[in-house]
This record gives sequence, structure tokens and C-alpha cells, in this order.
Amino acid sequence: MHLCRADADVLFGRGYEFKPRNELYQPGQFAAQETVTLAGPRGTLSGVRVLTPLRQKSQAEVARTDAIGLGLLPPVLQSAESGPATRIIIVGPAGVVDLPDALICAHRHVHMSPQEAEQFRVKDADRVKVRVTGVRAMVLENVIVRVGANFRLQMHMDTDEANAADVSLGAKAYLVRE
Amino acid sequence: MHLCRADADVLFGRGYEFKPRNELYQPGQFAAQETVTLAGPRGTLSGVRVLTPLRQKSQAEVARTDAIGLGLLPPVLQSAESGPATRIIIVGPAGVVDLPDALICAHRHVHMSPQEAEQFRVKDADRVKVRVTGVRAMVLENVIVRVGANFRLQMHMDTDEANAADVSLGAKAYLVRE
Repeated sequence: MHLCRADADVLFGRGYEFKPRNELYQPGQFAAQETVTLAGPRGTLSGVRVLTPLRQKSQAEVARTDAIGLGLLPPVLQSAESGPATRIIIVGPAGVVDLPDALICAHRHVHMSPQEAEQFRVKDADRVKVRVTGVRAMVLENVIVRVGANFRLQMHMDTDEANAADVSLGAKAYLVRE
Repeated sequence: MHLCRADADVLFGRGYEFKPRNELYQPGQFAAQETVTLAGPRGTLSGVRVLTPLRQKSQAEVARTDAIGLGLLPPVLQSAESGPATRIIIVGPAGVVDLPDALICAHRHVHMSPQEAEQFRVKDADRVKVRVTGVRAMVLENVIVRVGANFRLQMHMDTDEANAADVSLGAKAYLVRE
């Protein structure tokens, strides 16, 4: 769950400061101790972790399996700003927000630094294939490359994708050159 | 949920006859109206549908996402008879069974008739690759071919795999020839 300042104020109280729980692998990004609950027409999803720093626009990212539990069908998008997202109700300890355009299934992507992009001979916004091995080996196509000075090499997929490939944090993956 | 007679007797009552809800695509196989609840150390999963006809050995099939909710880590297996499966507790309206070796994540596979196998130039137990298209296009490797006189062409994958590929019932897939 990414929150903007205004929504954080409603959900947690005006000017609320989130407490870092752990640093993420991408520098400067944190998982907060605080979580929210998502509410849809079919069910709710609790324990959805807030990520910091705050953003310009709130965005909730769920796996398709979780979305089905909510009774919603969000699009697969890079961000809620890259296309029309789905309405979602967020419940926090201090209040509720009804966001008309904030729920997405995150499009899988690979973060990398400019140096790493050069090594792989790819550039920002390229689409690549990534292969994982094992009993559920697969080639994931249409993986977005995201190059940034602050990024470190890491592939982001959701729980459905990780479980379908039977991989977990720290698994090795191969960028496939045609 | 596949049940043997003895477990069905405990869960639903001696000699219980299951009521068909709908026929499955594979001839002679039905989803029953009856469901059971799976119980693990972390949580429960209710509404798990019984499939008929009864089998020689009970077998519960869950997606990895569901297994994590149960707090269990079942292996990816073709069946609970093809390797050591995981212990699972099953709750029915008439009783409970504690099965030491019955929970699996089903290995993805393709059912086909002998005629269809001939068309694809594959044989029973072959491993093939299957490609699905769309925003979450992927090539699923290590897909088991299951040829049977009673089978009709259909790929079986679990909800994690279907959601990771963003496909649902009736989606088209391509058997990839190297």
C-alpha cells in the first residue's frame, strides 16, 4: 500500500509519521509497521503493509488471487498513474478512504542501476523475458525493465507469480537473450 | 478434494452418496455439491469441493497461496501416490480425518485422448512447454502430458498459475515445439 499525505492523514491521523519496520532492497524504501485493510464487495484483506516514503498518489497493489477474494478485477498496470485503476476502500485505525482509481495488479518488472542495464544491454522501459528454473520452471515474458540511479538489481513479481513459479525471496532468475 | 470411501464415511456419514453439482470437462468426473474444510497450523480453508467418483486414496489439492494460508508447504506432485505428500486435517459435517500423507500442490498437466496425442506427436508422461499470451504471457515448462482413452484436450493448472498468467477457464494455450 502506497499512500499520499492526504489519505495517510485520514487513515492514521493528521501528520501521522509511519514507523519503519524494515528497509526494502531498493535503497531509501521502507516497509512500515502500520498496515491497512482493503474492503471490496465480496470480502476484505487485512494486514496490507504500508510502504514509505509517501507518494503523490495512493496506490494499492494486490495479487489476482487476493483481488478475487475482494470481489474486484483490477487491471495489470505498472502503476495507478499508467492507466485506469479500480476503486478500492481502505480502512485505517483513524478513518476510511474510498479511492475511485487506486487498485492494481502490479506489472512484473526488474529494477536495475544504469551500470547493470549496460551489462545486460537493456534500457529503461524495455520488455524482457526472465526464466526461472525448478519443478515449476517458466519463462515470464513482457517483464518491464526499470532503470534508475537509486535502483539495485531485483525482480518484482506478486505472490501469484512467485507461487506459480515456486520461487521465494532470493531465488535466482535468468534474463533471456533471444 | 478427492476422497476414498473410508474417509467419506467419516466425513459425511457411512455410505454417504455425493450429489453431483456439475460435470467436469473430463468425461465421467463430477464436482459434488458437498465441500470440506482443510485445517492447518496457521489457518483453515473452507469450501473445498469434493470431486467424484471416489478414489482409492484421499488427496487434497491446493494452490501454494492457499497452502501458505494453512501454514503448510506441500510438494508439487502429480498425485499423493507419486511421492511423500503433506499431513492435512479434513473437517466434514459428520466428522474429521487426520491424513498423514494427502496434501499436494498439483503438478500442472495436459489431458488428451490418444488421437490428440498423435496429432501433437507426444506420448503419455512426456513433459512439454505450453505458452499463454496476453499482458502476462508466459511459457510454462515441465507440463506433464496425460494420455487416456477417456480424456479430452484440456490443460489443468492451479489458481496461482492461472492468475500469474492472467487466464481463466476457456483461455487458449499453445503447445510449444522446440
